[in-house]
Amino acid sequence: MRVLEPERILRLEDTCVVFLDQRLLPTEEVDVVCETAAEVAAAIRTMVVRGAPAIGIAAAYGLALAATRGEDIAEAERVLRASRPTAVNLGWALDEMRDDPTAERARAIHVDEVARCRAMSAHAAGLLEPGTRALTHCNAGGLATGGYGSAVGALLTAWEQGLLSHVWVDETRPLLQGARLTAWELETAGVPHAVITDSAAAARMGVGEVDVVFTGADRIASNGDTANKIGTYGLAVLAAHHRIPFFIVAPSSTVDHATPTGTEIPIEERDPAEVTARFAARNPAFDVTPAALITAIVTEHGVHRAPYGESLVAAVVGS
Amino acid sequence: MRVLEPERILRLEDTCVVFLDQRLLPTEEVDVVCETAAEVAAAIRTMVVRGAPAIGIAAAYGLALAATRGEDIAEAERVLRASRPTAVNLGWALDEMRDDPTAERARAIHVDEVARCRAMSAHAAGLLEPGTRALTHCNAGGLATGGYGSAVGALLTAWEQGLLSHVWVDETRPLLQGARLTAWELETAGVPHAVITDSAAAARMGVGEVDVVFTGADRIASNGDTANKIGTYGLAVLAAHHRIPFFIVAPSSTVDHATPTGTEIPIEERDPAEVTARFAARNPAFDVTPAALITAIVTEHGVHRAPYGESLVAAVVGS
Repeated sequence: MRVLEPERILRLEDTCVVFLDQRLLPTEEVDVVCETAAEVAAAIRTMVVRGAPAIGIAAAYGLALAATRGEDIAEAERVLRASRPTAVNLGWALDEMRDDPTAERARAIHVDEVARCRAMSAHAAGLLEPGTRALTHCNAGGLATGGYGSAVGALLTAWEQGLLSHVWVDETRPLLQGARLTAWELETAGVPHAVITDSAAAARMGVGEVDVVFTGADRIASNGDTANKIGTYGLAVLAAHHRIPFFIVAPSSTVDHATPTGTEIPIEERDPAEVTARFAARNPAFDVTPAALITAIVTEHGVHRAPYGESLVAAVVGS
Repeated sequence: MRVLEPERILRLEDTCVVFLDQRLLPTEEVDVVCETAAEVAAAIRTMVVRGAPAIGIAAAYGLALAATRGEDIAEAERVLRASRPTAVNLGWALDEMRDDPTAERARAIHVDEVARCRAMSAHAAGLLEPGTRALTHCNAGGLATGGYGSAVGALLTAWEQGLLSHVWVDETRPLLQGARLTAWELETAGVPHAVITDSAAAARMGVGEVDVVFTGADRIASNGDTANKIGTYGLAVLAAHHRIPFFIVAPSSTVDHATPTGTEIPIEERDPAEVTARFAARNPAFDVTPAALITAIVTEHGVHRAPYGESLVAAVVGS
């Protein structure tokens, strides 16, 4: 099975960080080269690189680059930390780098995140029966995690194990990460799939064509409430209505024990022009799914079920 | 309040039917002139004109045009009837024209449909309290009904009566009828609104910013199950979860007593290229909302509540 190489997605070189530009995929495969921490922060802000684990890795590389170049480390850290507000992995990775802002440490974070993806994908695939028709939202693939993927990784592992028959891919407006990125990754890996508009998911569930929903996460509060791409909350309500299991697949670096519930998670509001340049619009980029609507949260440590306050303790950052 | 003139939306002239091309709005205001019934059928199929009541009026005009030109009426009727499968108004209007396929009869159907919109809009506005924040999907405005609108008509009446404070407009992928058409009609009328992605509706409900959902209908089965633009079913599930009333606003010409339940309603599958030209995709254009999830169905006759099998009897076509 073909999957994207981690260093194709993002890598640290001697004098720069190189990103595969996720805004142009799959139409064009273009690299973006960042030579300062501020340029890395801009790449995160403008979504050259996106996905909570991937932006954590990007921030680590940005800090290592700043250290190599002799930039003001505190200032570099501040700029990187402020680049996007919702994902907690950004702050987590910068905290991890604090005592050792080196290229080696940053690369180890990248390697670790991909290894976590492999582990959580095996846990998640273990939840499935043969013939599963899954639905996923946005892109929680290798592009989002620095390699292999969380929710999409679970689908890849399930496909290799002969458990998966089809994937419904929400196109994921406004930036179409599902139609552009997830469909591309599944196509590359040879997994049968079809893109649908986000609003078509309910009808697929209603006619019995969805057995399970897998999504990633941008931040998981300690009670299990989960912020993820706008639309995830609605999918969870729909899944509950149709008695379809709804799983979050995410690395433990996404769990934020400093955030007790979803209410405290800041929701980024992006430029309404991403939706429509002409009309009054709102463009919240994420929503929060209450823990009560989540069947289980799968991390590299295993399958965590309610009460999440207890089950996620084992998934504390660094454990 | 400015609303679109019915004859601006579609009209029968001596030798043609003229449509305001709804595919290009609001960027361009271009007329499409159809000189045969087959051209009218093509305009319906390609969505130059769309919306269940409007395509019924268009079919009536197409048949009157065929009669004027001395075309084979039976053939013209067959071609028009087959132009789109889900909306029942198409067949209803052609049945209405059978004994009197004249320009006068077709124009009377148009006038009647707009009058029905005014009536149902008054009924629907009567369901609201001052300060209402409504959400609507797709376009059930004047463009969809030949003038004034059903669900959007209800919003216009509510606004005039001082009952409405804000409208959330689902952009409605893949053809963006909400972002393009509903937003344009609300802007023209001066009603405060914001476009959101379809998948953002759940989060707006979750934070308590939606008081009511109004949508139109393409076909209402006699038990109240309602086919409408893909995404409507999901909104109804979300509204039920949040205990938000969910109203269908539609003319009685949309009620099909020959269809007992939603299961028998044919769902049009349109070209996947409307979603994405590059990837495997599915593009169902409608879904069916079970009657149990609908708070009430509002027609020009009033507010119909469950059991719809009884309450819709008064809304039988032609009553």
